[in-house]
Amino acid sequence: MPGSSPTEIPSERAALAQALFSPKRIALIGASPDADKLTSRPQRVLRRHGYPGAICPIDPDRDEINGDRTYAAVGQIPGGAEHALIMTPAHSVAQAVAECAAAGVKVATIFTAGFAELGQSGKRRQNAIAAIARQTGLRILGPNCLGVVNVTGRVTISANAVFEHEVLESGGISVVSQSGSMLGGIVTRGQERGLGFSKLVSVGNEADLGVGAVVDLLVDDADTRVVLLFLEALRDAPQLARAARRAFDAGKPVIALKLGRSSIGRALSASHTGAIAGEDDVADAFFRAHGILRVDVFEALFEAAQLVLGQRPPSGRRVAALTVSGGGAALVVDRLGMAGIEIVAPPAALVARLAAEGIRIGDAPLVDLPMGRADGGAYARILQALLASDHCDAVLAVQGSNATYVPDSIRERVLAAQTGAKPLAVFLGPRADTALALLQAHGVAGFRTPEACADALRAYFDWQPPAASIALDSAIEARLEAVAVAADAYPDVLNEDEGHRVLEALGIPCAEARVLHSGAEAADLSFPLAAKILSRDIPHKTDIGGVVLDIATAGQLGACVDDMLSRAHAARPDARIDGVLVQRMQRGLGEVFVGYRRDADVGPAVVLGVGGLLAETCGGHVVRLAPVSIEAALEMIAAVPGLALLRGRRNRPRGDLRALAGAIHKLSLLALLARPRVLEAEINPLIVRADGVVAVDAFVRFDAEQRAPHQQGDLGVAS
Amino acid sequence: MPGSSPTEIPSERAALAQALFSPKRIALIGASPDADKLTSRPQRVLRRHGYPGAICPIDPDRDEINGDRTYAAVGQIPGGAEHALIMTPAHSVAQAVAECAAAGVKVATIFTAGFAELGQSGKRRQNAIAAIARQTGLRILGPNCLGVVNVTGRVTISANAVFEHEVLESGGISVVSQSGSMLGGIVTRGQERGLGFSKLVSVGNEADLGVGAVVDLLVDDADTRVVLLFLEALRDAPQLARAARRAFDAGKPVIALKLGRSSIGRALSASHTGAIAGEDDVADAFFRAHGILRVDVFEALFEAAQLVLGQRPPSGRRVAALTVSGGGAALVVDRLGMAGIEIVAPPAALVARLAAEGIRIGDAPLVDLPMGRADGGAYARILQALLASDHCDAVLAVQGSNATYVPDSIRERVLAAQTGAKPLAVFLGPRADTALALLQAHGVAGFRTPEACADALRAYFDWQPPAASIALDSAIEARLEAVAVAADAYPDVLNEDEGHRVLEALGIPCAEARVLHSGAEAADLSFPLAAKILSRDIPHKTDIGGVVLDIATAGQLGACVDDMLSRAHAARPDARIDGVLVQRMQRGLGEVFVGYRRDADVGPAVVLGVGGLLAETCGGHVVRLAPVSIEAALEMIAAVPGLALLRGRRNRPRGDLRALAGAIHKLSLLALLARPRVLEAEINPLIVRADGVVAVDAFVRFDAEQRAPHQQGDLGVAS
Repeated sequence: MPGSSPTEIPSERAALAQALFSPKRIALIGASPDADKLTSRPQRVLRRHGYPGAICPIDPDRDEINGDRTYAAVGQIPGGAEHALIMTPAHSVAQAVAECAAAGVKVATIFTAGFAELGQSGKRRQNAIAAIARQTGLRILGPNCLGVVNVTGRVTISANAVFEHEVLESGGISVVSQSGSMLGGIVTRGQERGLGFSKLVSVGNEADLGVGAVVDLLVDDADTRVVLLFLEALRDAPQLARAARRAFDAGKPVIALKLGRSSIGRALSASHTGAIAGEDDVADAFFRAHGILRVDVFEALFEAAQLVLGQRPPSGRRVAALTVSGGGAALVVDRLGMAGIEIVAPPAALVARLAAEGIRIGDAPLVDLPMGRADGGAYARILQALLASDHCDAVLAVQGSNATYVPDSIRERVLAAQTGAKPLAVFLGPRADTALALLQAHGVAGFRTPEACADALRAYFDWQPPAASIALDSAIEARLEAVAVAADAYPDVLNEDEGHRVLEALGIPCAEARVLHSGAEAADLSFPLAAKILSRDIPHKTDIGGVVLDIATAGQLGACVDDMLSRAHAARPDARIDGVLVQRMQRGLGEVFVGYRRDADVGPAVVLGVGGLLAETCGGHVVRLAPVSIEAALEMIAAVPGLALLRGRRNRPRGDLRALAGAIHKLSLLALLARPRVLEAEINPLIVRADGVVAVDAFVRFDAEQRAPHQQGDLGVAS
Repeated sequence: MPGSSPTEIPSERAALAQALFSPKRIALIGASPDADKLTSRPQRVLRRHGYPGAICPIDPDRDEINGDRTYAAVGQIPGGAEHALIMTPAHSVAQAVAECAAAGVKVATIFTAGFAELGQSGKRRQNAIAAIARQTGLRILGPNCLGVVNVTGRVTISANAVFEHEVLESGGISVVSQSGSMLGGIVTRGQERGLGFSKLVSVGNEADLGVGAVVDLLVDDADTRVVLLFLEALRDAPQLARAARRAFDAGKPVIALKLGRSSIGRALSASHTGAIAGEDDVADAFFRAHGILRVDVFEALFEAAQLVLGQRPPSGRRVAALTVSGGGAALVVDRLGMAGIEIVAPPAALVARLAAEGIRIGDAPLVDLPMGRADGGAYARILQALLASDHCDAVLAVQGSNATYVPDSIRERVLAAQTGAKPLAVFLGPRADTALALLQAHGVAGFRTPEACADALRAYFDWQPPAASIALDSAIEARLEAVAVAADAYPDVLNEDEGHRVLEALGIPCAEARVLHSGAEAADLSFPLAAKILSRDIPHKTDIGGVVLDIATAGQLGACVDDMLSRAHAARPDARIDGVLVQRMQRGLGEVFVGYRRDADVGPAVVLGVGGLLAETCGGHVVRLAPVSIEAALEMIAAVPGLALLRGRRNRPRGDLRALAGAIHKLSLLALLARPRVLEAEINPLIVRADGVVAVDAFVRFDAEQRAPHQQGDLGVAS
């Protein structure tokens, strides 16, 4: 935007934020005068929290509702309402939305349920109101949402019981939730701990304003210092990606808890190995790629906020730990160990410096002060030394019953030592609510459970800066051009032979192969060979006996080809059979699986795992958003446990990891090709040798909807 | 014990329980009159909690301490003290212990630290007091422990700050902890929730009375209904095993939280693949074998108590779930899914029955009642129906903000519906301490975090009755006899050829093999063959090029043997080389690893995993205490994800799982052989065919200390 400085907020976004979070006048459509009805609550809570603007109930039949003057229609509010809360029955919501748009309302929050969450009929109803929003410029929050709360501005547009009871503390934490009830869960639990909130948004069905759009506004919000996301699904990933990157640049950490981890179980049972990258793996890759921290434990979502506030992604995975309770510390440290996070012993110089001050700490990784030795400033002094030392990237401090019975001891032991220079996580073994609130009030991250403490530290250590984009140079363009040219000749689903042509266009070495159509053609070849049925309709060749290995002679091959063709026709009479592919047998140090998939929500991703028949049951796998650089591909290889042998364990020869990384990188470049669009591509197995790699299988599928005939120079390259 | 009825408690145990938990007179040795000293606390807390007996401080220089009359020596207490608490400096503890023994004290609790936890010198000091205990019959709790508390009997022998501040509720939960501070953690957290405790025991260094001995007493304790264990290590596993089995028979669940899960990381990097069964895996197998539930999340330790009270191990893994918060339920259900626990939809008949009452619940697995539809008894009615239905093995009920702001709604919604017939887990999404305490007071398991809720349910579903012992029939005896006879000829560590003899004695098929001592002997064999260096000193043959596969001709073999021998001598000049073992190449459907190991703490265990080079990085493994029955071995096979292909996935031929189970069972029988004792045995790989199995490698190591020459008929069979 020419002329605008980086800190200036575009006026459209500023206007939306104003109407959403700080409207001067709010229209309540469907507000009840009956205090027993849920629809009476928003008016009550607006007043209770001291809303400074005008509350304008809409009711043609009454003069006032609970003391607020009513208006017959939204359009009659003098000066106009910027924000309307719609609580009327589902069938009448569209009309109310249209009236709001006509009256110049900028944001309508729809509390009413009965939309897309009910299935097809509700979905149509929701589309209708979304269409009004698109046509008129009115923005919609919900439907089926519990509203929006601006704590700092005392604007409480919500039907959530929480706001009827709690007195909220202002602070830097904003929350965006796809679950209305769990937004309440976060707020009530946070209240007990003295958490200060800025904006709380329940996005409901996201007919218009989604999580990404709201995060985008929060990046500009001066009161917001950290954004928490409670997610059930990724509905508008590209917008969230852009917002998260802006938040990262602005130094505002975004922390997400996303449901659906167990969907990987379902994904693993899907028919095609491409599904090895389950939805949740892709979500994980998404968070990683865009600088979002992901927690797994519920309370870690808000407890981690203080831990990462003001921090940047770490450079190592080393934690220094200080405790007065061996058992309490072990509860946290044990979990850190399982996440590959190391507890590091204090360096000798630090031990010596403390000893010179009369403080003996030993040289074990866990600094464990027995009862009685933690007083007189010793605990604080050690903590200070650990926080200042560069042998660690974060510090864990554990406290015992002192925190319960002498909560003020936290001041001397922990608060006196904090520096903010690196993340400090404090776990309290016993029940110690007062001490936890005291920590929070002084900007120190306190944890109620060892699980949340370990999970928050783990999330911090897994935090990555947003991934850099891949520069589209002429070499890459030439490769994609070659793929596009090759694709012109093929249908949407490629057979293995055609798939190899695509891989070769990308620059991935493939095993030499020939297609035979009968056993009689089996001459003039060098052995041993593998023979595989060639059909775009039979992805699992082994299931029908369509793979024979180690064929030693032309005679064997001839018989095998004829036999395989007749078996395939018999087993799958409808399948298009293009012949039998024969390849020289390939040997290597190991086999990997490399897949590419365009996820409907998140976009292109690559997956790497152990190859061959073991792919689905063995050795783990890793998923990253595509494209990936060579360096990122090397990091993927290091992250798959089942590839340990390839990395050179046990004096075995090391695989050519650089060549493997190159193949992953090249396959991932398909993400940059917008037309023809590749939905899925996989190599299983890719054989890794001490010198190079070779693909001995290939599967590629194009998107039927993005297959306009190729024109020279028009790659439709995605940016 | 002839003449004693099952309910009668042996008098020795009863006397110990009396002295430990309910002494009439307690001697305090080292009690301070100075309220600022930690050693003044036990006297204070005994009074505070209304100890009904006599408090007898020992001090020759004072007449009284804080109002209690002192005695110059323990022996001077009229009537004698049954229990003494020793708080004197470490160097004088042995003398105090000896005085207690001489004075007829039955139990001495030693608060003083400075013993085995400090290393060798402390260990010697501890052994000295343990020796006094053994010689005199005095029993010792500690040293380095925070004491013992009988809540129901108002006996508070402890220096833990908790008892200075909390008023404890009596109840059926007893806790035994190896961590004194985390015992406080459990009590303070439980207090907030209204948990009622019976006995609380901090065992410290376990010089004499260990966790098992204390559990044994709690089985007899009429007030104890469930036992919680906070463990750092398994120090006297056999005694705990016996006590846990008695507890199971008495219907008192034992729930353990054990630290050290991440030690598996260390174990996996150990030199020998036998170490694939890490310490923690073996502990897991131990808990499973003896009917102990194991939780993984800290607060689940006490939250699970109410869930399993009065229950027996489940027959299925099906959970019915009812919620008013989709997000809240998903937090729990997601984790259950990852543990393979299914959420089951209500059966059609149940849905119809409720519909007839005007309650519509749909047929989705998760019964999700929108706001407003949970009132008027509907929630309770559905919950009741789910609890009564046999389509599920446990029920999950989730509540939202009602639980926070109208805690009494719990009565109508949950308490009215509970039956106790099957486990009911209630998770409250928001902060709702009052409702949680209300649930506890009425015997319903309430959970504060979704992680603890899911973990407790998972622990319940993993709960097994104590494993039956394997009957030692004549066939088994003959096999063990054959092993013992074979062993006589061998040193402690066997070479592969000798190892095969042991496997064959057990009835496990081994590949036909011959030992060659030079290439010149390589004639008269059928090919292809594998050749392996034969040495008891080279466990990792591949590391020195000591394995060559697919040898096709006698010429190749001859060269290979000579080459391998000279390479082995060069690489490992100190190793005893017994020749080269040649075997026919074996093919099968897959390779597994079967190991046997005698753990120093827990005893014999078997492990099953994916075999070959992938063993350590791929596919998971499962560990069970040995011996295992054929049925238990089949269950092991089903539990290893990486063996999915052998189980017949993807239309592939199914491996002979019965033969595999037989081999696991037979190897596990080594546990029954006390002399010679086998420390370690492994087959990697054992090749699994469609018809049978065959071992192509073997490693066996005897215990040098249990190798008395074999005598016919004296198997030293372990029971």
